[in-house]
Amino acid sequence: MRVTVWNEGVHEQVDAAIAERYPAGIHGAIAEGLTALLPNASIRTATLDTDAEHGLSQDVLDDTDVLLWWGHIAHDKVSDAVVERVHQRVLAGMGLIVLHSAHFSKIFIRLMGTTCSLAWRNEGERELVWTVKPSHPITRGIEHPIVIDHQEMYGELFDVPDPDDLVFISSFAGGEVFRSGMTFTRGAGKVFYFSPGDQDYPVYFHPQVRQVLANAVEWAVPAHGVALPGVTNPPREWFAT
Amino acid sequence: MRVTVWNEGVHEQVDAAIAERYPAGIHGAIAEGLTALLPNASIRTATLDTDAEHGLSQDVLDDTDVLLWWGHIAHDKVSDAVVERVHQRVLAGMGLIVLHSAHFSKIFIRLMGTTCSLAWRNEGERELVWTVKPSHPITRGIEHPIVIDHQEMYGELFDVPDPDDLVFISSFAGGEVFRSGMTFTRGAGKVFYFSPGDQDYPVYFHPQVRQVLANAVEWAVPAHGVALPGVTNPPREWFAT
Amino acid sequence: MRVTVWNEGVHEQVDAAIAERYPAGIHGAIAEGLTALLPNASIRTATLDTDAEHGLSQDVLDDTDVLLWWGHIAHDKVSDAVVERVHQRVLAGMGLIVLHSAHFSKIFIRLMGTTCSLAWRNEGERELVWTVKPSHPITRGIEHPIVIDHQEMYGELFDVPDPDDLVFISSFAGGEVFRSGMTFTRGAGKVFYFSPGDQDYPVYFHPQVRQVLANAVEWAVPAHGVALPGVTNPPREWFAT
Amino acid sequence: MRVTVWNEGVHEQVDAAIAERYPAGIHGAIAEGLTALLPNASIRTATLDTDAEHGLSQDVLDDTDVLLWWGHIAHDKVSDAVVERVHQRVLAGMGLIVLHSAHFSKIFIRLMGTTCSLAWRNEGERELVWTVKPSHPITRGIEHPIVIDHQEMYGELFDVPDPDDLVFISSFAGGEVFRSGMTFTRGAGKVFYFSPGDQDYPVYFHPQVRQVLANAVEWAVPAHGVALPGVTNPPREWFAT
Repeated sequence: MRVTVWNEGVHEQVDAAIAERYPAGIHGAIAEGLTALLPNASIRTATLDTDAEHGLSQDVLDDTDVLLWWGHIAHDKVSDAVVERVHQRVLAGMGLIVLHSAHFSKIFIRLMGTTCSLAWRNEGERELVWTVKPSHPITRGIEHPIVIDHQEMYGELFDVPDPDDLVFISSFAGGEVFRSGMTFTRGAGKVFYFSPGDQDYPVYFHPQVRQVLANAVEWAVPAHGVALPGVTNPPREWFAT
Repeated sequence: MRVTVWNEGVHEQVDAAIAERYPAGIHGAIAEGLTALLPNASIRTATLDTDAEHGLSQDVLDDTDVLLWWGHIAHDKVSDAVVERVHQRVLAGMGLIVLHSAHFSKIFIRLMGTTCSLAWRNEGERELVWTVKPSHPITRGIEHPIVIDHQEMYGELFDVPDPDDLVFISSFAGGEVFRSGMTFTRGAGKVFYFSPGDQDYPVYFHPQVRQVLANAVEWAVPAHGVALPGVTNPPREWFAT
Repeated sequence: MRVTVWNEGVHEQVDAAIAERYPAGIHGAIAEGLTALLPNASIRTATLDTDAEHGLSQDVLDDTDVLLWWGHIAHDKVSDAVVERVHQRVLAGMGLIVLHSAHFSKIFIRLMGTTCSLAWRNEGERELVWTVKPSHPITRGIEHPIVIDHQEMYGELFDVPDPDDLVFISSFAGGEVFRSGMTFTRGAGKVFYFSPGDQDYPVYFHPQVRQVLANAVEWAVPAHGVALPGVTNPPREWFAT
Repeated sequence: MRVTVWNEGVHEQVDAAIAERYPAGIHGAIAEGLTALLPNASIRTATLDTDAEHGLSQDVLDDTDVLLWWGHIAHDKVSDAVVERVHQRVLAGMGLIVLHSAHFSKIFIRLMGTTCSLAWRNEGERELVWTVKPSHPITRGIEHPIVIDHQEMYGELFDVPDPDDLVFISSFAGGEVFRSGMTFTRGAGKVFYFSPGDQDYPVYFHPQVRQVLANAVEWAVPAHGVALPGVTNPPREWFAT
């Protein structure tokens, strides 16, 4: 299981409070959680500044089963070529886990085909994350609800297509609700969107949030060898034994 | 459009406060709302005591396009023969709208195949009903959110199969969430479950709740003439022109 | 109900057999069918060559409730600005009906987020279109199966996201199957993909295909006034009554 | 991984040709395939005649993670008490794999809530099983299509609720199609219906059919410890940390 944790990594450079909260970066906090829970996984991190390709060269993607993506204030800094490459790799089977404000990342918008807009309010409200599909492997070991004492509010309408599976619904102290854990299939690739997690709160240190992410990585591993769906023009009876 | 509003009608007989709140019965309040919003519909009501068949004879069902069902403390008083008859009629195409505590009605449990259990708390909390599928015709003219000042809390996990469409999600003052508006298909019939509505609160007089119910009735009208799906044993090329 | 039928309109100009088969163009054949079945609808047509905006100016789109789209050999001739405009309008609520080879149109690929690839073989095989969701309004009056004597084969894997509703599945004489009628929601807009229909066969004169398209137009009309989902940043209790 | 393969086991007793085709019974053939592909699983079999409880005592069910079910001519011989027990166990999380003619088993009808009727024709037609969701773990290692030279035809309309995931669609030589591999969730339990497999054909010796069943068993293992969803009446802030 080869995992790449990607983070734009900008907040940590420009905001001391965030740098203090996430001393190894948001990617570092996420990778730390995965390392503890998935001891057999090979986990690397990359950021916007890793190299000219944001650490997401074709070689890296070819060596990645599941990619996690966090971004917020630098979505437009991500090169279109890299987004195209990630897109093709997801359609070919690579798992993708889209985190919090990455709802507005280029890759997520391209995969969804919608605006991906939502309501938000950053007042540190309590978020409760309720499981609504307990048969789903992403819920393994997850409390009902997860209690996150302080979080940015994300509220409906979240403009995305209907998910394959709605796994979690959150409520916030102010009364808004949000479909906070959803799975999608695009091509041969599995996609999981999970909203808890923000630069202003230490959410990626929360043990239950870490468990969800580890579960999601295991779930998102490709079912097959990776291959892009393509056009074929078969003769009649091509499949005959 | 021929509509039958069914209510067990027991609370109104044994609790003076409820009788005062719903002087024409819960069924009467619902029918009044539908009559105002669907002037071309033919609307009748029936209760457990209407007759030996609870007002749901085969003739009545054959003359019904959409049935609304409210029950709470007398689910087990509904005769199995009537439940069977309603079940067959839904599978043949009759629309069914299942209201609030009717999550535990015999007909709903039979259609769902699950326990239909949930969490509840009756402390008159504010319920907010959020639209999460604005393309759905049931949301026409509905505010986001509907605000219901006092309601019984219904919370997840609501043990039902995944719906065809998740239309509404509610939050309650205490922080719980609930999938409060869901559509299902069973056989040729359309089913809508809508949780707002309780004997202890005047929810069925709420203009927005009434609008949802009227929209749901229009949506649930059978697409075709009504016929039960059945087994066939066709020869090859039976469909040839 | 304001309907715009769009066709690239290139085959008819360069292939005499096709021009003879569709003397009013593919768009003309479709519009003729809709006009007969939806006498109260206002129906217009447009093609790639109608004007610099392919007949899809903002004014035309603002005056369109449902857009039908046919294309095949000129997908790349459609201007990106027009595609962007159509995309925004769909997300805001305009219905979109995507026909046959338009699975590879820019607008459909953008809405789906996948390759939209499939298998094909053009040998005039018989196609049988089977209804698998008879409760859906698009199936009203539709035979089970629709028999199309000669058609291009489209086969799985059709690389699109899971639909909201799978309405039709086709088989072909050669044994392939195809999910030939599927609904999707994108933003506030309803999308229906329907595969029967090809320049080499007179499929758009088939009475049952025409009925499906008329049903789909009625189904795809926006539920509300048209408005693009957007970001909001509401204060707490903004919804309080 | 504890697996129980259940078969009514009647055909094998009364029809010499079937007994010869399936010398260890249909259950034996299925168990043999699972044993080869899931060497770490503990696999037992049971039939209608195993004991008064058809080999499905509470102890056996409590010791079963995934149950496979085959039945055809003796559905009504299965005791209602056993069906109730299996139902409760599925809702609590036990996986259930429903095979071929068990579409009319009491347990499947109860879980679906519909008639589960379909079209059929027993003329040994070729069945092609096409994968339409290649991201699903049940498709791991499965050819596209699976070719089954001789099978009973099962055709649409198959009257079941919309599945969680449509994994396979079959076509038959006569032109009919069938949703032949579908997943459902009921309570905490995962259910997979798979239609290939019949007493008159040696389908359960087909290597690809065996692979599908092994994949399905792995997929259906409960995500959590097994517990029936139940009603709760929590006080406010019961979840507070």
